[in-house]
Amino acid sequence: MAQKPSIPKGTRDFAPLEMARRNYIFDTIKSVFSLYGFQQIETPAMENLSTLMGKYGEEGDKLLFKILNSGDWKRSLDTESLAGASIGALTNKVSEKGLRYDLTVPFARFVVQHREDIQFPFKRYQIQPVWRADRPQKGRYREFYQCDVDVVGTNSLLSEVELMQIVEAVYRRLGIRVSLHVNNRKILAGIAEVIGQPERMVDITVAIDKLDKIGIDNVNNELLEKGLPEASVVALQPILQLSGTNAEKLDQLENILASSETGLKGIDELRTIFALYADSTQDGDMTTYEPSGMQIELDLCLARGLNYYTGAIFEVKALDVQMGSITGGGRYDNLTGIFGLPNVSGVGISFGADRIYDVLTELNLYPENLQSTTELLFASFGEAELLYALRWAKVLRDKGLCVEVYPEPAKMKKQMSYADSKKIPYVAIVGGDEMAANKVMLKDMVTGSQRLVSMDELLSKM
Amino acid sequence: MAQKPSIPKGTRDFAPLEMARRNYIFDTIKSVFSLYGFQQIETPAMENLSTLMGKYGEEGDKLLFKILNSGDWKRSLDTESLAGASIGALTNKVSEKGLRYDLTVPFARFVVQHREDIQFPFKRYQIQPVWRADRPQKGRYREFYQCDVDVVGTNSLLSEVELMQIVEAVYRRLGIRVSLHVNNRKILAGIAEVIGQPERMVDITVAIDKLDKIGIDNVNNELLEKGLPEASVVALQPILQLSGTNAEKLDQLENILASSETGLKGIDELRTIFALYADSTQDGDMTTYEPSGMQIELDLCLARGLNYYTGAIFEVKALDVQMGSITGGGRYDNLTGIFGLPNVSGVGISFGADRIYDVLTELNLYPENLQSTTELLFASFGEAELLYALRWAKVLRDKGLCVEVYPEPAKMKKQMSYADSKKIPYVAIVGGDEMAANKVMLKDMVTGSQRLVSMDELLSKM
Repeated sequence: MAQKPSIPKGTRDFAPLEMARRNYIFDTIKSVFSLYGFQQIETPAMENLSTLMGKYGEEGDKLLFKILNSGDWKRSLDTESLAGASIGALTNKVSEKGLRYDLTVPFARFVVQHREDIQFPFKRYQIQPVWRADRPQKGRYREFYQCDVDVVGTNSLLSEVELMQIVEAVYRRLGIRVSLHVNNRKILAGIAEVIGQPERMVDITVAIDKLDKIGIDNVNNELLEKGLPEASVVALQPILQLSGTNAEKLDQLENILASSETGLKGIDELRTIFALYADSTQDGDMTTYEPSGMQIELDLCLARGLNYYTGAIFEVKALDVQMGSITGGGRYDNLTGIFGLPNVSGVGISFGADRIYDVLTELNLYPENLQSTTELLFASFGEAELLYALRWAKVLRDKGLCVEVYPEPAKMKKQMSYADSKKIPYVAIVGGDEMAANKVMLKDMVTGSQRLVSMDELLSKM
Repeated sequence: MAQKPSIPKGTRDFAPLEMARRNYIFDTIKSVFSLYGFQQIETPAMENLSTLMGKYGEEGDKLLFKILNSGDWKRSLDTESLAGASIGALTNKVSEKGLRYDLTVPFARFVVQHREDIQFPFKRYQIQPVWRADRPQKGRYREFYQCDVDVVGTNSLLSEVELMQIVEAVYRRLGIRVSLHVNNRKILAGIAEVIGQPERMVDITVAIDKLDKIGIDNVNNELLEKGLPEASVVALQPILQLSGTNAEKLDQLENILASSETGLKGIDELRTIFALYADSTQDGDMTTYEPSGMQIELDLCLARGLNYYTGAIFEVKALDVQMGSITGGGRYDNLTGIFGLPNVSGVGISFGADRIYDVLTELNLYPENLQSTTELLFASFGEAELLYALRWAKVLRDKGLCVEVYPEPAKMKKQMSYADSKKIPYVAIVGGDEMAANKVMLKDMVTGSQRLVSMDELLSKM
């Protein structure tokens, strides 16, 4: 026998149970998106490399899966170019398309390309796989789904608030207790300003983003190593150690950032967002977790690596599981600028389906009946019984019931074990006696009890 | 301003309306699959080229999109190989993965790879995009969705019958009148036998597959050109000209194929399938279209190009639109044999989502309310009104209503035109008077009428 076939490293097959669980997550998320008027779009798996290259940094360019040009791609190579050229230059000669790396850049491309047909503010969601040639490891795949929801074409902070409500609603429906971490890029810019290092905002945010993981001493060391003056690192300390409620933190921060117009703008934005969210949800105290609510935490260590964020930024963490962020996003002022359409502000978040899957699995939060939609299996003792079952099945399906007919009069044990493995709750056994009586023997697969029933009885039972 | 960005030739963006229509098709198909106990799986977009190559013929190999290996792919090339080697050999050096070309081969790979975990008969469906480097043209794309449903692990003809029932149910729900063309590969083999050309079955079926398109004279010419003796072509004529009901055709065919055991087996299979289908649906006359039924036609010219079919084959045509086949499939006895697992018989069909989309569009059969799920838009005259609207919206959404709040107190005309373009049926206008009265001005966007309503009145209205 030939070697067992396999799939590429870092990719996955999804069997029926895994699919049912994934669909449960996607359907829950979609139903909440719909409540808020978001509409679905899809973009092609392949984008022109001119769309993708240069959007994810140098490292990102390397992680793009590139499609070999069709036909005689070697024609565009010659022995000289092969010997002399860099791998990047050569790749450009043999490949002009790549697989999408995220949903954000294709969305920006979509908005610019179709701007005449789009009614702004444009509220869209998109749930599709993305591909990255990353080194696969536990929880990191080369193909995975992203689940993005964005509003573009308005500066209104109401959009931030609605996204927070969406986060709350999704996790409430999934039964996952979460905390929403919020920060604002303008505050981070203000901090860089007041410690005298306005040009170093990226270095500073990258370092303090790691505070949770590596601790304050290591963050300080990293900043010094990166050439930040000691005075600036010292000036940063009170900010890293702010405490109290969100409102208290913002008050302290207002004093610290008093000299930074940008910083104060960021504080003002967060105050507005928190107030609108609290007001619209009648959730009085935002700093503690309520069974009906969601913990919201101003987290100055939250930076999010992506450079296109310009306002509020968000990350969601599950409270009862050790796991990285399961949702994240923020406000961007100029995402479509890279494609020549400036000044289209937007805000969006992305739900991490794979991590949500792991959280639900670890907390055992999936609904009971996900595995099988089949409510009843017909098991037959012979060919005539099979035909009888097929007729009954047609009637039940016309009434909307999900039923199966075991397709052969196999050994009854085999038919039962099929029902067992698919977790089908009822089996209708058909033999000569049942046919003669115009009935079936209905067996409850949980209790094991069985009784003879007519079609009417079966219909009322199911 | 930079050049407008674009997407690769032969690929498409799906805007909200297109997505809603596509989801309507997929949801309809899925709900029918569920009624019959089929479960969803998904496989990765990328497969190893060793899985894909050689499965679709030489032409197919060329149409596979191949992924350039990550890292320094040029290392595996040297100047000699570049000069001397064939493009195929070179491609193998720089690429080891490709995008899936259909769902059938990945499914066979899935069954073999996971056979220990699968309970047979395995009833699965799969709805995912596939990619082909074909020349794009009207109705032919380089990325398109397939929608496959298969039963593997049983020889039972009941599976064929259930697939026919599924076809009937799907098109009944979609409102498309269709005719189901049925043939059997064993009958085609029998025909090749009795005209004395058992080795030429493929040539013969390829030619007669074109009967509808090019006419009987051209089919005969093609057969002669391919070197079929004139006597064989003459012997074929009565078969090409069979007429009458399905039962009558099968009776005539039984005489013609009397000397072919395979041919008679094929006739027997079709008789069984037709009888089971007719019996289970109480559809007496299978040859005429009934409003509640589906026209079923024994079509000896139906061959289907794919060589893995071994029994019944199916194709569905829409009756009221000029369009190629919108669904097709058949029985295969050894699909998994290519991956080293012989003797796993199966039967499957594939729904062509893109063509179904076009049929529904041409016949104007989409439900009215697909475009927008939003039932109500709040339009506000000022910031305070916006906050008031946000509160009301929260209450309505908690009751399960899909509502939007226009995120800025923009000009009322702009807010109304947003509602218009999204086809939102009601707008709740909020000004100072409405707030003072703890009400909203509810405007019916169809009739234009408006009246002041309280929250309770709004809830009972919606």
